[in-house]
Amino acid sequence: MTVKRLGILTGGGDCAGLNAVIRAVTKCASWQYGMQVIGIRDGFAGLIGKPRTVNITTSMVKGLLSRGGTILGSSNKANPFAHREMVKGKLIESDHSDEVIQNLKELEIDCLLIVGGDGTNVIGLQFFKRGVNVIGIPKTIDNDLAATDITFGFDTAVNVVMEAIDRLQTTAESHHRVMLIETMGRNAGWIALQAGLAAGADVILIPEIPFTVEKVVAAIKERQAAGRMFTIISMAEGAKPRDGDVVIKQIIKDSAETIRLGGISQLLANQLENAGAGECRATILGHIQRGGAPTAFDRNLCTRLGTEAVHAAARGEFGKMVVIQETKIQTVDIAEAVRQIRLVDPQGEWVRVARDTGVSFGDE
Amino acid sequence: MTVKRLGILTGGGDCAGLNAVIRAVTKCASWQYGMQVIGIRDGFAGLIGKPRTVNITTSMVKGLLSRGGTILGSSNKANPFAHREMVKGKLIESDHSDEVIQNLKELEIDCLLIVGGDGTNVIGLQFFKRGVNVIGIPKTIDNDLAATDITFGFDTAVNVVMEAIDRLQTTAESHHRVMLIETMGRNAGWIALQAGLAAGADVILIPEIPFTVEKVVAAIKERQAAGRMFTIISMAEGAKPRDGDVVIKQIIKDSAETIRLGGISQLLANQLENAGAGECRATILGHIQRGGAPTAFDRNLCTRLGTEAVHAAARGEFGKMVVIQETKIQTVDIAEAVRQIRLVDPQGEWVRVARDTGVSFGDE
Amino acid sequence: MTVKRLGILTGGGDCAGLNAVIRAVTKCASWQYGMQVIGIRDGFAGLIGKPRTVNITTSMVKGLLSRGGTILGSSNKANPFAHREMVKGKLIESDHSDEVIQNLKELEIDCLLIVGGDGTNVIGLQFFKRGVNVIGIPKTIDNDLAATDITFGFDTAVNVVMEAIDRLQTTAESHHRVMLIETMGRNAGWIALQAGLAAGADVILIPEIPFTVEKVVAAIKERQAAGRMFTIISMAEGAKPRDGDVVIKQIIKDSAETIRLGGISQLLANQLENAGAGECRATILGHIQRGGAPTAFDRNLCTRLGTEAVHAAARGEFGKMVVIQETKIQTVDIAEAVRQIRLVDPQGEWVRVARDTGVSFGDE
Amino acid sequence: MTVKRLGILTGGGDCAGLNAVIRAVTKCASWQYGMQVIGIRDGFAGLIGKPRTVNITTSMVKGLLSRGGTILGSSNKANPFAHREMVKGKLIESDHSDEVIQNLKELEIDCLLIVGGDGTNVIGLQFFKRGVNVIGIPKTIDNDLAATDITFGFDTAVNVVMEAIDRLQTTAESHHRVMLIETMGRNAGWIALQAGLAAGADVILIPEIPFTVEKVVAAIKERQAAGRMFTIISMAEGAKPRDGDVVIKQIIKDSAETIRLGGISQLLANQLENAGAGECRATILGHIQRGGAPTAFDRNLCTRLGTEAVHAAARGEFGKMVVIQETKIQTVDIAEAVRQIRLVDPQGEWVRVARDTGVSFGDE
Repeated sequence: MTVKRLGILTGGGDCAGLNAVIRAVTKCASWQYGMQVIGIRDGFAGLIGKPRTVNITTSMVKGLLSRGGTILGSSNKANPFAHREMVKGKLIESDHSDEVIQNLKELEIDCLLIVGGDGTNVIGLQFFKRGVNVIGIPKTIDNDLAATDITFGFDTAVNVVMEAIDRLQTTAESHHRVMLIETMGRNAGWIALQAGLAAGADVILIPEIPFTVEKVVAAIKERQAAGRMFTIISMAEGAKPRDGDVVIKQIIKDSAETIRLGGISQLLANQLENAGAGECRATILGHIQRGGAPTAFDRNLCTRLGTEAVHAAARGEFGKMVVIQETKIQTVDIAEAVRQIRLVDPQGEWVRVARDTGVSFGDE
Repeated sequence: MTVKRLGILTGGGDCAGLNAVIRAVTKCASWQYGMQVIGIRDGFAGLIGKPRTVNITTSMVKGLLSRGGTILGSSNKANPFAHREMVKGKLIESDHSDEVIQNLKELEIDCLLIVGGDGTNVIGLQFFKRGVNVIGIPKTIDNDLAATDITFGFDTAVNVVMEAIDRLQTTAESHHRVMLIETMGRNAGWIALQAGLAAGADVILIPEIPFTVEKVVAAIKERQAAGRMFTIISMAEGAKPRDGDVVIKQIIKDSAETIRLGGISQLLANQLENAGAGECRATILGHIQRGGAPTAFDRNLCTRLGTEAVHAAARGEFGKMVVIQETKIQTVDIAEAVRQIRLVDPQGEWVRVARDTGVSFGDE
Repeated sequence: MTVKRLGILTGGGDCAGLNAVIRAVTKCASWQYGMQVIGIRDGFAGLIGKPRTVNITTSMVKGLLSRGGTILGSSNKANPFAHREMVKGKLIESDHSDEVIQNLKELEIDCLLIVGGDGTNVIGLQFFKRGVNVIGIPKTIDNDLAATDITFGFDTAVNVVMEAIDRLQTTAESHHRVMLIETMGRNAGWIALQAGLAAGADVILIPEIPFTVEKVVAAIKERQAAGRMFTIISMAEGAKPRDGDVVIKQIIKDSAETIRLGGISQLLANQLENAGAGECRATILGHIQRGGAPTAFDRNLCTRLGTEAVHAAARGEFGKMVVIQETKIQTVDIAEAVRQIRLVDPQGEWVRVARDTGVSFGDE
Repeated sequence: MTVKRLGILTGGGDCAGLNAVIRAVTKCASWQYGMQVIGIRDGFAGLIGKPRTVNITTSMVKGLLSRGGTILGSSNKANPFAHREMVKGKLIESDHSDEVIQNLKELEIDCLLIVGGDGTNVIGLQFFKRGVNVIGIPKTIDNDLAATDITFGFDTAVNVVMEAIDRLQTTAESHHRVMLIETMGRNAGWIALQAGLAAGADVILIPEIPFTVEKVVAAIKERQAAGRMFTIISMAEGAKPRDGDVVIKQIIKDSAETIRLGGISQLLANQLENAGAGECRATILGHIQRGGAPTAFDRNLCTRLGTEAVHAAARGEFGKMVVIQETKIQTVDIAEAVRQIRLVDPQGEWVRVARDTGVSFGDE
């Protein structure tokens, strides 16, 4: 079949580069193939009920390369196969997949590009098995998808964190303090590791290498003994102590109300002070890592993935995901791609390089 | 008297531009007057006990314009008039001011430049009354000193916060969220106000204008009703609800351990969610606001203050503070300068301009 | 009269902050006074012939704070009193002011906000004398308007140049080279001076202080003799040698074709090499100084000027210009404001501060 | 043999990341192997005559990650096999290679790390053939070495150029102008291509794809016809018209003096204006592309290459170059590595992706 109308949606947590993908898809589809591009609003949520869409023209994507976020909006938890809504005060979960398929038909969308993380692509795969022509473009700020060497948004996040640590360096040095910076990364520590290494962090704490408070304090004291009165700690939000007793997003009950801690870093800062590390201060960058203008690498990766997705659509390669492997853009089966994630290998090159330059992971 | 040897120390929390002051002082003193410049380490702490100093030459200050922090180090709490130290396991407080005066004599320091905040300058004033030739250079990242139109480091901090909010804008927009950014400012809300205004924050919460959670939620809901599904809140760490029941740096006792909250923002994020504002996320920039390369404005302000301090020393204007008033560098009595702080005027131009462009202060 | 419909146009070369003015005007006019805002395209050119306008709503100005340029477009040379157009192959100049006045009437514009430089405001003044209600907002990237302490866009330009020089510092140092950076400033040297001072330039060349190649080479050699093998020169495009023999934008005729030099810097780099200064490299930032996201200071200045212009319109203060004097927003007569420019005072504080820290102006 | 003393030199034009390599080498060599690190000043020039060296300790490399340039200095043209010096007013070229070998022996340097481009590594290879233990680390800002997937400094340069073009976009749009930005790249167009693609340049001119002025003008006019009144051109300094008649660094003789043009861009801007493209402005970033803080990618690449070079030295893998291939750090023979450069493939993926998104290369 010839793809005449190309749908595109963005799902899951946002990251720098989503708009660059939309721009590349629109330009390539319009100019190279004369396809119409239909943007679906707020991820799969835009296909449930009355579809919410917008025809995207090349003049609409002007200026999108440098703009963070996604003009289409996203939806963190929309799953048409288990759609939740409030009905008469009760939360009802029901399957709306038929509705989505019907909507796609009525919109005459010949192929649907799905820019999303694991969850969104698994949903895409289910629709593919139901006969929908889908092509996936991987998106995870954590860079933990095994099928692709690197995901867009990651390079930007790493640079944002690195620049923050650069700023902390001078103030930590002037004041003889421990500075703790909490980064994204619940399961994979890539951001904390690569940003920490790039900014010269002294301690890096990641989910893949459980730490002990004692070892972290020992690293701080070793530095102090060598006359280095300050320490920078780069810490993934999912970093955990070896014994596992600290729960991320810990719920603490106060007499009056429930307080949800934003991150593990303030908890650890407190523990470090108690354990004699001196004054500690925590910084939580939060969503700053997701937003803003992408780096050149991310913009170009998005443009390469976006154009290739259009070519794959033109070639009729449905059920595939567009990825980058060994500097080359390729396509792989979505079914295979969603199966494996890539964590930091505690024995791998990155960790070894960090240790080679004196970084402590709080484990030895 | 002719000043031949000029001492300089930096005290209190650091901020961008301290090194630029040291550079300007050194170049101007060396080249224009042939003075020797003696740097004192770690604020007044470097004058207690055996003095810790370094002769600063013009070749040592190369590259300092763009470097954050202070090469001299600082000391947050060093007060020679009430010096605290551990003696036989007990914390003893005693007057070491004679020692400082004796040290300055032995170092043959004819004039001491004091770069510091209120606390440091009050100490300087006490020494001036005891016969020490001091000249003050004001430093407060909060920009709350009435004697000077603006303090260095402030412009840098405002730009750092603004750029962070810029990044949050796109991700907030894509995800229909409330984003809360906590800035420095315990008593004065200048950073939260000027950065928030510059970045287009929708709500600005500052100590000078107590807020209510209800009004903040109302502002968020009013935006949602107008189709703007996200809200950015710029919040000073010292912002407080009208009834005053939320304590900054609140100590919460858990069964197992004591947890010190880093800031008020996460507490408020939680309250907003409970009050129906939708998903809220907090970002705490912390010391990132203090560090890193200063803006052009801050660098030049430091160079102007530093050179003028040297000229004032050459003219023998002791007991004075070098300030900027109505775009001109001036000198005022330290005694007068430390007396008044400048808070945001709830009826003043800045607040009015913010309200004019639709900003809510959570108060009406 | 009550202003119900407020026109706004942007004229002359652009600079960072124009969009921020448009945003502030629109929000304040709409929300505080219920005025309608009519944007005029491409400066006064949009009022000649069939008027080209756009109704600006508050939802249209979303995101404008951080966006460079002007959404209204500008026109460098449009002058309705001496409008030039090609008629039958000939360039005809004629007075179209009646047409403009007629168009404003038909558009029912009660007051016209003119954001522009000297030229644009002089035109505005002429219309004011003809009975049009105008209010001016000053715009000159060169910061050379005497009526206002600082113009928006200037702080951004200075930071852009400073960051460029920061980058040159390390490469100049590694390679023992003379690096020349050419900045904007045909008549006033403020950008070259303030950016050069902020970035630690060794030589600063500005129109107000004619230089000699000999003195510049002497400054370079003096540095080399002191072991500093590199020199950074910050040079305004209007800098000129004392004898005046180098013409900016010099036209050089080659045998084959006419070549227009972009700037004076390459010419000077060549002369310095010939005079024995060693290897010289020129960098021309050009329009990079005009574009991109404004600094916090510029954004807030724009918001303050924009809202005050609306209040002035509501108060009926026509024929006035909104300015900042001694940190306060004020209004002055346009007639007076356009009369005086402010150049760098060769004997003033800024030049003295630069000399105090060892900067050479190539004049002594 | 066991390497106890490790020499390191940096040669050729500098680029972001050289200091990061020096830091990684020093930390890894000192802490993992107890080697001493001897820095050689100004490339091979530091080994001619009395050697100029410095023992590099781990405390000396503090803060080097974010610092541009090279603390060791560099030398663009030092070749010990054909060393040029002035003797009695004449330029004499002679072989000083024996002297270098003798110096290395006296310094007891067991292995010499050579961080440099093609030229420097060819010299290193010659010394290797003469029995010196050398290991190469590739350095070329142009990213044109076939043996390694990417060279450090390139990512930083691309981001610097992209940010400059980002700034030009808004001003070009407001003023309906053609903006030409000249980047590094005499033989390879990678910087102009990747930065141009990332920033949304409309025309990209590179050495590998000769252009014609007519085609460039046609692309500009096609945009104008579609209502896009501005055009951004990203142009490598080595870009050349198809017929080859424009010489880079063209020498133009004027009646009074010789003027060396800094780049081809102003020449082209002039030709474009003459050919009817409208107003054109050129920007020459020059050495700004080489300097300043490296990106996270570049810093980490440097750390990976630096540590691996030390491990290779410890393993005795002399005559090798440390490279990155398919995301993995590897070693290859220097002899092989210096043989091949990698130009942009006019039929390759990058050019195709650019064309897919509407970029013109001025060739068709």
